[in-house]
Amino acid sequence: MTAVKTKPGHRDKSTGVSISLSAHVVELAARRRTTRIFAVTPVNMDDVLYCVRVAAEAPSGANRQPWRFILVDDPERKAKIREACEEQEKRLHESVEPGLGQWFKSKGITWQKPFLTEAPILLAVLSDQKMPYATESTWLAIGYMILALEERSLSTLTYTPSYPENVRAVFGAPEEYRLEAILPIGYSADPKPKEKRRAFQSSIHKNVWNAQA
Amino acid sequence: MTAVKTKPGHRDKSTGVSISLSAHVVELAARRRTTRIFAVTPVNMDDVLYCVRVAAEAPSGANRQPWRFILVDDPERKAKIREACEEQEKRLHESVEPGLGQWFKSKGITWQKPFLTEAPILLAVLSDQKMPYATESTWLAIGYMILALEERSLSTLTYTPSYPENVRAVFGAPEEYRLEAILPIGYSADPKPKEKRRAFQSSIHKNVWNAQA
Repeated sequence: MTAVKTKPGHRDKSTGVSISLSAHVVELAARRRTTRIFAVTPVNMDDVLYCVRVAAEAPSGANRQPWRFILVDDPERKAKIREACEEQEKRLHESVEPGLGQWFKSKGITWQKPFLTEAPILLAVLSDQKMPYATESTWLAIGYMILALEERSLSTLTYTPSYPENVRAVFGAPEEYRLEAILPIGYSADPKPKEKRRAFQSSIHKNVWNAQA
Repeated sequence: MTAVKTKPGHRDKSTGVSISLSAHVVELAARRRTTRIFAVTPVNMDDVLYCVRVAAEAPSGANRQPWRFILVDDPERKAKIREACEEQEKRLHESVEPGLGQWFKSKGITWQKPFLTEAPILLAVLSDQKMPYATESTWLAIGYMILALEERSLSTLTYTPSYPENVRAVFGAPEEYRLEAILPIGYSADPKPKEKRRAFQSSIHKNVWNAQA
């Protein structure tokens, strides 16, 4: 068991009430880091539902709310999902373009995805491709969701399966749904620090391309 | 001038300091609504930069941070952008599929986009399509950004230009960049309430498709 630190905005488990002090968005965003190794500490389902509730408030193309979530806590289901994903990952890693392959190597990323069985919860996020801007809207909602996860001291990784159309079937989802991501959810046991970001100012142009703000 | 209400997390203009009480993510998400009519009240550039800073903390495919932002406050530039967008909107509205056309009509949405000149600031968001998951990562970052805008009491609309490849040129952006959205930013003068969302529970399946949580 890994100790879980209580942070602002985290529900106090001993009293069951929320700590009223909450973090500014920039604090959540800056603190939040990708996690590939999860503690065995169980996750309170109410915390996960809170995050879905947040995501479901997101705007979407013509307000069609194209997202669907599959919440997986059954170990047998998780094992099947991992198997289906790793099969496709093997294909990717055999044929990856050199630049990305180099990055995978530098980060120790292989075709193996243990977090798909080790995280207490998997949340598959799908989008109805019949809806306008289905993928864009759904990723915006994922942005909402991962800030909410951070607020509850939960960690995740926006894992995008390779060849998602071959993984969709393991969830039994209809053909018109695109499997956008699988979010493993739990408390982090990953010692890796957050990946560095460019200074945000360097991503801004003023009025036209290449003019600095 | 429309009165601007100070909300938790909003910087107090008289003292220049932040109000330390900040809102929970669910409060920001629930409160936030799409705005198409903006007050003439000027926007503090520091607030906009705060939101870009938040967006730039988002995770992205292989941490490539594919997003670029063009911050437009020059009225002449805004007029050119509006003109370029409306030209493409006319094309869309002439050939829109009936379902979406009906929705446009019910919401009073036409080819005219006055918010592109009326909002004090436009923030164009582009993604480098050479990067992995460029569009997905950029929309996740937009999700971060619009929660940050709400925290600063600023409103926006995730306006997606029709035929964005024909609008990109007005920004002078290179070909490999996709114009994902133009966010008009300002204080809301839009009386419309937030569009209703489905109950979030109805978007969740448990373990497999069609099983309820």
